[in-house]
Parts: sequence; structure tokens; C-alpha cells
Amino acid sequence: MKVTSTRSIQQTPVDMPGSTGCHVRWLIGKPEDAPNLAMREFQVDPGGHTPRHHHPYEHEVYVTEGQGVIYEGDTPHTIKAGDVVLVRPNEVHQFQNHSETPFKFLCLIPNEAYDLPITMAPECGDSQSAK
Amino acid sequence: MKVTSTRSIQQTPVDMPGSTGCHVRWLIGKPEDAPNLAMREFQVDPGGHTPRHHHPYEHEVYVTEGQGVIYEGDTPHTIKAGDVVLVRPNEVHQFQNHSETPFKFLCLIPNEAYDLPITMAPECGDSQSAK
Repeated sequence: MKVTSTRSIQQTPVDMPGSTGCHVRWLIGKPEDAPNLAMREFQVDPGGHTPRHHHPYEHEVYVTEGQGVIYEGDTPHTIKAGDVVLVRPNEVHQFQNHSETPFKFLCLIPNEAYDLPITMAPECGDSQSAK
Repeated sequence: MKVTSTRSIQQTPVDMPGSTGCHVRWLIGKPEDAPNLAMREFQVDPGGHTPRHHHPYEHEVYVTEGQGVIYEGDTPHTIKAGDVVLVRPNEVHQFQNHSETPFKFLCLIPNEAYDLPITMAPECGDSQSAK
């Protein structure tokens, strides 16, 4: 068993192309030898966003603090603390924070994600391929 | 994509032997065709507890509200909102709430758990087999 506090885990910037004002804490992952899944906490600062992207595995998301928007392709959904999102494999999605306070959420992925690609989605007008 | 609110999902009593004052919401699971993992929210009322049990798969736990105790075998760990626990496969564990307010946590499991057994651990003195 491993018991820890979120705040004791180092938060690092998300350096993926298309990411602005995003930070991540790996709460449970490979270092803990978790057999099947990884738990991360993301923080999106006011005005920030994740890349618009897709990948061949799911996200299971639980909003822990603040509020933000998740885009399902071009469709925005406003979400807030206590809301839950299943992002299905290969769905184009993006998190944005239009509020004045940090937007935090847990994002769970299967371990197989470590070996699978992430694809950035072209912006609207650049290409239709990722819509 | 499926977006929902925790509060919109029905909470049902946990009817496992050895459980008192426990309730569960299945936030993401089989009905959503989540490919790899299930997300549940448990609530343990003041004075309540889960069974003392073990199973051949892990739990990934995030405390969302209140505080409680998780037993690692016979060793108690006090946990509160924002704390994270990895319960490794086959570890005997139990959640208890000694506080005056509800204790809530997310508990993620791999889908393979649906087909695997849960074993109740005999109380101290009854047997040494599950320690």
C-alpha cells in the first residue's frame, strides 16, 4: 500500500506542443508499479489549455477544483468540481480554462497508453482529417 | 464522450457482508463501455466501514471529501481530502470513518476486477490465513 498527499507530489509543466499554462502531477504510475492504470492530476491556469488532440485510449476524468471547458471535437461542455467525463478512444478533445481560478482534474489512463501515440489535431480550417 | 455530474448518478447501499454505512455511485463503468477501467465514488457515513477484505486486483483511491482511516492489514493510516492511496493486489484493507461527517473517495479498478473474487478477511483472532 502507498499512502500519499497530492500536495507532496511535485507538479511539473506540461510541455506538449499546443499546451499553455498546464501542469501535471503523476499521483500513481509506473514508479509505484501500479498494475493496470495511472492517475494524474492536471492543473490548467486561467487562460490556459491542453493541446487539441486524440489518442487510441480513453481518459476517465473527475474535476476536483474550479471549472473549465472540455471540447468534444468542436463542441464545448462546461464542467466543474464533481463532474465526470469519459473521453472515448480516438475522440478529439481539449481542456480550456476561461475562469479566474485554477481548474484541476484527475485524469486516469490505462497503462497501455505509455506505448501508444498522441496525435495533435489540426486547427479548424487547416485540415479535416482529425475531426 | 460522456459528461455527467456525480450528484446526478444514483447512490446505492453497499450490501457486501462486513459493510456498514457505505454507499456507492458507479461514475464510469460497464454501461459506458469504458474499455479498461471503472470509476466509483464511495461514501462511508460517520461510524461506518467497508468490509475488511482483499482481492487480486488493485485500487487507486483519491479522497474527495472528509477524512477517514484506511487499514493496511492491522496498520491504520489517516487520510483526508486530496490524499491518494494505491492498494496493491491481495493486500488486506478496510476503510473506516471515525469522524462526524461523510467520508468520500474515488476508487478506480481495472475491468478485469468484474470477473475476480473478493475475499473477506477474518477478524483478528479468528484466523491467521488472511493476514
